[in-house]
Amino acid sequence: MSPKENELALTIVQKMMLENDAFSLWLDVKLLQVAPGYCKITCPVRSEMTNGFKIAHGGITYSLADSALAFASNAHNIKAVSVETSISHTKKVVEHDVLTAICMEKNLSSRFGIYEVTVKNQREETVALFKGTVFRTGEKWIETF
Amino acid sequence: MSPKENELALTIVQKMMLENDAFSLWLDVKLLQVAPGYCKITCPVRSEMTNGFKIAHGGITYSLADSALAFASNAHNIKAVSVETSISHTKKVVEHDVLTAICMEKNLSSRFGIYEVTVKNQREETVALFKGTVFRTGEKWIETF
Amino acid sequence: MSPKENELALTIVQKMMLENDAFSLWLDVKLLQVAPGYCKITCPVRSEMTNGFKIAHGGITYSLADSALAFASNAHNIKAVSVETSISHTKKVVEHDVLTAICMEKNLSSRFGIYEVTVKNQREETVALFKGTVFRTGEKWIETF
Amino acid sequence: MSPKENELALTIVQKMMLENDAFSLWLDVKLLQVAPGYCKITCPVRSEMTNGFKIAHGGITYSLADSALAFASNAHNIKAVSVETSISHTKKVVEHDVLTAICMEKNLSSRFGIYEVTVKNQREETVALFKGTVFRTGEKWIETF
Repeated sequence: MSPKENELALTIVQKMMLENDAFSLWLDVKLLQVAPGYCKITCPVRSEMTNGFKIAHGGITYSLADSALAFASNAHNIKAVSVETSISHTKKVVEHDVLTAICMEKNLSSRFGIYEVTVKNQREETVALFKGTVFRTGEKWIETF
Repeated sequence: MSPKENELALTIVQKMMLENDAFSLWLDVKLLQVAPGYCKITCPVRSEMTNGFKIAHGGITYSLADSALAFASNAHNIKAVSVETSISHTKKVVEHDVLTAICMEKNLSSRFGIYEVTVKNQREETVALFKGTVFRTGEKWIETF
Repeated sequence: MSPKENELALTIVQKMMLENDAFSLWLDVKLLQVAPGYCKITCPVRSEMTNGFKIAHGGITYSLADSALAFASNAHNIKAVSVETSISHTKKVVEHDVLTAICMEKNLSSRFGIYEVTVKNQREETVALFKGTVFRTGEKWIETF
Repeated sequence: MSPKENELALTIVQKMMLENDAFSLWLDVKLLQVAPGYCKITCPVRSEMTNGFKIAHGGITYSLADSALAFASNAHNIKAVSVETSISHTKKVVEHDVLTAICMEKNLSSRFGIYEVTVKNQREETVALFKGTVFRTGEKWIETF
C-alpha cells in the first residue's frame, strides 16, 4: 500500500470511527496499526467485563474482534457493513489479561470482503478465532480525486 | 418440563449465573423466562453501547445473544461451554431500542447442544439471528438426587 | 403467497434449476414442495455417497441442504447467490437412509436473505442443521409484468 | 513432526480413510501431502459435478474441504469428528477446473481442533474459504507404544 493510502486509512479509522465509537472507548480499545484491509487493536480486561467467575464474557472478545473487522474493512475508504460473523473461543480470558486482535483480509471482491481475526492474550496465546464477511456499499468515507 | 426442573433452572440462571455476571449486569440484562434449554432475556440500548452514529455496536447484540445461549444451555443443570457461535445482524439497532433475545434448543445430545437465538427490538422486528454450539461438560451446577 | 407466485416458483426451481443441475440429479434429488422462500426436497443415501464405513460423507448432507437453499431463495424470482453457509452434523447418516431437507426463510431484505435448513432422516430425526446467507442480485429469472 | 509421525499420518489417511471413502473416490480426490494437523488434496471438476450452467455445485467444493478437514484432523492418530463447519464461496468454479484444498490447524486442545481450509483453482485463485471445528474422541486409529 502507498503511504497515502495508509494515511487515509488512519484518518478514517482513528478519527472518524474509533474516536466516535462510545462502546469501543468503553472497552478502552487502542489502535496499534492500520492499513487498507488490516488492523491491530488492543484492550485490557477489566472486572466489569467478566461474568463473575473472573472470566471475561464471550461478548468482550467478540466486540474487540468485531471492531477490528469494522476498522480493517473500512480502511479501504469504502463503507463496509457486517453480513455474518462467527467466533470460537479457544482459551479462557481472565481479568487483567490484555487482548490484542489482528485482522487480516482473506479475500476481497467488489461487493464482499472476508476477514479473519485472531485474538491473543499478553502471553501470545490464541484466545479466539473470528471470521467475518462484510458487504461493501460502494460509498466512500472521504472523497479522493 | 416438570415444575421442579423449571425451579432448578431459575435458581441456576438467576442466582448462580446472572446475579454474578458483571458484564450482563452492565448491559442491564433482565431474565424474563427460563426453562431447561430455553430462555428469554431483555436489555435496553444506552448511549455508551453505540458506535457514535447512535447505532449499537455489533458486540452488544452478540453479548445479549451469547448470554441467552449460556443461560438456556446451562439451565439443564449441566455445565455447558460455548464451542462456536455465529451471528448475522439483520437490522440496525439504535439508542433507546429495547432488545429481547429468545433462545431455543434445536438439538441436544449427551455432549453437544445447538441453539438458535433470535434478537428482536421493541417493534418485534428481528435485528439479529444467532446460532451457537455448546459442549456439555457433564458437571452439574446443583447436585440432585 | 398467491397461486401465481407459487406456479412461478415451481417453474423456476423444477424446470430452470433442478432439471439442469447435473449434481443434484446425481444425488437423485426430488422436489416435494416449493414456494417463494421455502422448499422441501429429498434424496436417498446410496453406497457411493458413503465414506466406506457405510456412513454418508458430510458433503452429501451439505449438498442437499445447499440445493434447498438455492431453490428456496431463488423461488422469489430474483437470482440469489450464496455468501456464507454453515452446517452442524448432529446424527450419523447411513446407507439406505432417506434424507429430507426443509428450507425456511428467517429474514429477507432487498439485498440479503437468511435461511435455515433442517435435514431429517426417514425416522424424522434431525441429522443436520444448516444456515445460509444469500445475496440477491436483483436480476429476475422470468420477466413478469 | 517426526518422520515416524508423518508415516503414521500417511497410513491412516491414505490406507484407512481415503482408500475406503467411496464418495471421495467418486470425487477423484488425490492426497498430495499429509502430516499431523495438515493436508493438501486435489480433485478435478467434471461435468456431473456442475449445476448445468457449467458451474460446480457448492457441495463439491464443500466436500473437498470437508475431506481435507477429516484427513488433517485425524492425522494426529486420534479419531476426530466434525462439530461445525462453514464455507464462503468466493469465486465460481467451472468444469475442467482443478481444485486444491490446503488444510491448516489453527488451534488444538485436548478436546477440540479448529482448522482452516483454503480451496484454490489451477490459477492459484481462492475459490472458497472453509472453517471447521472437530471434537477429538480420544480413540486412536492405530495403537502405538
